[in-house]
Amino acid sequence: MTHATTVWQANRSGGLTGAEALIETSLAAGVDVCFANPGTTEMPLVAALDSVAGTRAVLGLFEGVCTGAADGYARIAGRPAMTLLHLGPGFANGIANLHNARRAHSPVFNVIGDHASWHLVHDAPLTSDIVSLASPVSGWVGTAASGAGLAQLTARAIAAATAPPGCGATLIAPADFQQEVLTAPVDVELPDTRLRREVAAEVIDPIAERLRAGERAVLLLGGAALDERGQRAAARIAAATGAVLYSETFPAAAERGGGLPDLDRLPYFPEKAVEALAKAQLVVLAGALEPVSYFGYEGIPSLLAPPGTVEVLSTPEEDGALALEVLADRLGAPEPAARPRPDDEGLPDGALTPQAVGRIVSAMLPEHAIVSVEGGTCGYPFFTASSRAARHTALTNTGGAIGQGLPAAVGAAIAAPGRKVVALQSDGSAQYTIQSLWTMAREQLPVVTLIASNRAYNVLRTELGRHGQSRPGPNATALTSLDGPAFDWPALARGYGVPGTRVETGEALRRELGRALAADGPQLIEMAL
Amino acid sequence: MTHATTVWQANRSGGLTGAEALIETSLAAGVDVCFANPGTTEMPLVAALDSVAGTRAVLGLFEGVCTGAADGYARIAGRPAMTLLHLGPGFANGIANLHNARRAHSPVFNVIGDHASWHLVHDAPLTSDIVSLASPVSGWVGTAASGAGLAQLTARAIAAATAPPGCGATLIAPADFQQEVLTAPVDVELPDTRLRREVAAEVIDPIAERLRAGERAVLLLGGAALDERGQRAAARIAAATGAVLYSETFPAAAERGGGLPDLDRLPYFPEKAVEALAKAQLVVLAGALEPVSYFGYEGIPSLLAPPGTVEVLSTPEEDGALALEVLADRLGAPEPAARPRPDDEGLPDGALTPQAVGRIVSAMLPEHAIVSVEGGTCGYPFFTASSRAARHTALTNTGGAIGQGLPAAVGAAIAAPGRKVVALQSDGSAQYTIQSLWTMAREQLPVVTLIASNRAYNVLRTELGRHGQSRPGPNATALTSLDGPAFDWPALARGYGVPGTRVETGEALRRELGRALAADGPQLIEMAL
Repeated sequence: MTHATTVWQANRSGGLTGAEALIETSLAAGVDVCFANPGTTEMPLVAALDSVAGTRAVLGLFEGVCTGAADGYARIAGRPAMTLLHLGPGFANGIANLHNARRAHSPVFNVIGDHASWHLVHDAPLTSDIVSLASPVSGWVGTAASGAGLAQLTARAIAAATAPPGCGATLIAPADFQQEVLTAPVDVELPDTRLRREVAAEVIDPIAERLRAGERAVLLLGGAALDERGQRAAARIAAATGAVLYSETFPAAAERGGGLPDLDRLPYFPEKAVEALAKAQLVVLAGALEPVSYFGYEGIPSLLAPPGTVEVLSTPEEDGALALEVLADRLGAPEPAARPRPDDEGLPDGALTPQAVGRIVSAMLPEHAIVSVEGGTCGYPFFTASSRAARHTALTNTGGAIGQGLPAAVGAAIAAPGRKVVALQSDGSAQYTIQSLWTMAREQLPVVTLIASNRAYNVLRTELGRHGQSRPGPNATALTSLDGPAFDWPALARGYGVPGTRVETGEALRRELGRALAADGPQLIEMAL
Repeated sequence: MTHATTVWQANRSGGLTGAEALIETSLAAGVDVCFANPGTTEMPLVAALDSVAGTRAVLGLFEGVCTGAADGYARIAGRPAMTLLHLGPGFANGIANLHNARRAHSPVFNVIGDHASWHLVHDAPLTSDIVSLASPVSGWVGTAASGAGLAQLTARAIAAATAPPGCGATLIAPADFQQEVLTAPVDVELPDTRLRREVAAEVIDPIAERLRAGERAVLLLGGAALDERGQRAAARIAAATGAVLYSETFPAAAERGGGLPDLDRLPYFPEKAVEALAKAQLVVLAGALEPVSYFGYEGIPSLLAPPGTVEVLSTPEEDGALALEVLADRLGAPEPAARPRPDDEGLPDGALTPQAVGRIVSAMLPEHAIVSVEGGTCGYPFFTASSRAARHTALTNTGGAIGQGLPAAVGAAIAAPGRKVVALQSDGSAQYTIQSLWTMAREQLPVVTLIASNRAYNVLRTELGRHGQSRPGPNATALTSLDGPAFDWPALARGYGVPGTRVETGEALRRELGRALAADGPQLIEMAL
């Protein structure tokens, strides 16, 4: 990893403020989108977003919208956006989606304004321990101690965030240093393009040997290995050796459809996952972590692969796609024949079911769409159907912090102008960051939000059943039901400036989805299940 | 402080689970309301909320609703509610309002489910450093290490939370210990009623001396000293000595109106606060902390009172009302004559202004209403007008974390059945926890939400002006404006099942507020400014 050293200096009469130096450095490092919900202690930075040209500032009404958008942006753009958040409590509202970003290995650059350094000791009402809040979701945390330090630490934070596999980096920017007028040039070290490490032959060869020897193998792809190259190489290996392919259960961004391999996700519930891996003698990880149970259940192992079967072909830091290609070459595996896209057997009419939604959305996806999937109700059926869809990129909730899908759709749309975004979203999880709809409306983003409306936290009903509560009592019913009252989704959408409608049948979904995909700005469709 | 020791034991065949032991202990300590947004790792606790009778479980669609409601509940009920939140990310969504609760000295008992203890080492997707997240907003954090430990630590957490001045206490409850079936009785130490410490004569007498000697004094009341007794005693002192009375700027819960003293709040902006205190030779703190500037501004001192003038009559831990009574007695101060409630000079018609809103809402408040105030636009004018209102309790945003007003209204309504609650709320801040409206609808709470709709983060416009940005550029304009699109508040309310309407004039506000106050369940009125 090398760094380009750049001398950066004040470039206008009257000098640059620390806030302006931060923004100039950020732009020089290629960060030009800022998802912001600022307050008083960020006003110099807000002013600097105008005095230094080049950053697109996008307002979120709630901080979780900003951090989730930065995650979605990073997954599609492959580089960080900035978030600008207000002190400890404002940052805290963004933690849940930074948790997801951390699990997605998304590079995110967080800037938090803090009180003036000399004011902190007085413990004013908004003072809090920001480092303690930021550390669990940041690979790097730093606090600037001068105006020049804001520029230097900006470069360091962005370098930390963008080094593979990517992480959140959080810079705390005291208000006085934002305002400080710099009197001398500042040297900063800008991060170079960070390449993923190549996997050594000593790692690849023994795996090739075991595959050649006919061991029953599973290839589990994750992270960057889920791009087109990685998947095509994995398909060669599978065709040559009979290895079974899986994608990690919650990929950050997976290319899907358009003739790519029909890559199932490893099942979510541990019994099914254990079953899927039970016969393997060799479980090869390419960019994926060792599969573990999402939750711990009495009597079910945390580690899902049979003991002693796991071999790491590539870590998330490494170039997994290249490693898979080298492995396929070692095996002399030819390109498998292209899979013809099957004729559609006709789309389902009548009352909507999750399966019908999965098939209809898959069939109607425009080429190169981005699909942000949150919630199991329609998410799993969509994945079942969508390997036959047009080429698209699927984003999932990597960390399990709810309220990720709509903000990620916002960020993805900003990262990829010209691509349609579909947010396939469960009703319960949509509520955590519902304010995303307003940012879609303000920025006129081409996002079609599909709400799977079953008026329940269905996954919790299932989990209650696992705890022997097949007939939940009144409190458990109240805590897992979203009825009484049911949401009026078209009204909520309209409240935020997004045209919304409600459908109950396959015919209506096809008609409204066609109309929504043809529209320019955001649209919402409540799918009553 | 004494503790009652109670032997608690399994009371049904088959034994009690750790989760049931937690709920039984919590009920025995007087905690019988649970604001919850649970997930998989809290399912045994959710089941226990039914198998152990006596807790009212209230669902919030977002965790900040739950924690803000627990804060509002504590302010009115004077005792903790439980929050039940899901792992680190779910808890993180509740941090902002726990920050406010901490600044309000509200007793709050947080329960966070965590992974099964034996599963943690595998770093499953939802694993995070919960202690690091919880510590900044908790006076006490503990992790149970057994099923019996859940009961014991519940008692200890509630004791910590309820010891004056009150704090948040956070119990981390691993899922396996929630499920563990207890085989032997468990002893727990239940907290006794915690009395505030009495203030010693050695503290009171020197202050009495200086007041008698004619020093120009300001009495700054805060915390529990803002109850009726404290205010009446302070009014006696003021009448006898000429001392000027102020309330802290953001009281947790202040009794107002109905003939109580006309107690101004110390001004928010530091220049005004410095001016208010400039002539004082003695600034007496009764339950209030030393006043500090809300933010640090270049050239303005952080400490607002003249150096050397501050004397502490009572800390937030102490019985400030009693101290004020003793001080008034020392001074031989008689009861001042009751202030007649002035005739209303007629309420304003025509286009709504913040001043008109303040006067109309004050005049129409029903007896013993609770008013949850968040946002400056109508908040300050309401305080100016409301000393002449009927007796009511005013709640304010103590910690500056935005999104506090609507959840606090939810909690206050649940704490005080039979009292009307008015949430006087700015549009920008309402968006952070907008999901509160749904809980109001589900629980059919008598909350009238009044939205001060000016379609801007006006306080930030003011702050930009303080940074010399009297004409904000395009990014600063975008980041401080809520137009483009404007919210449709009646639609948002309807989306959550709350009847909503919009008014533009004083006549219309009087008519709609009268109708809303007469209704049974929640209502929302958008006040277009």
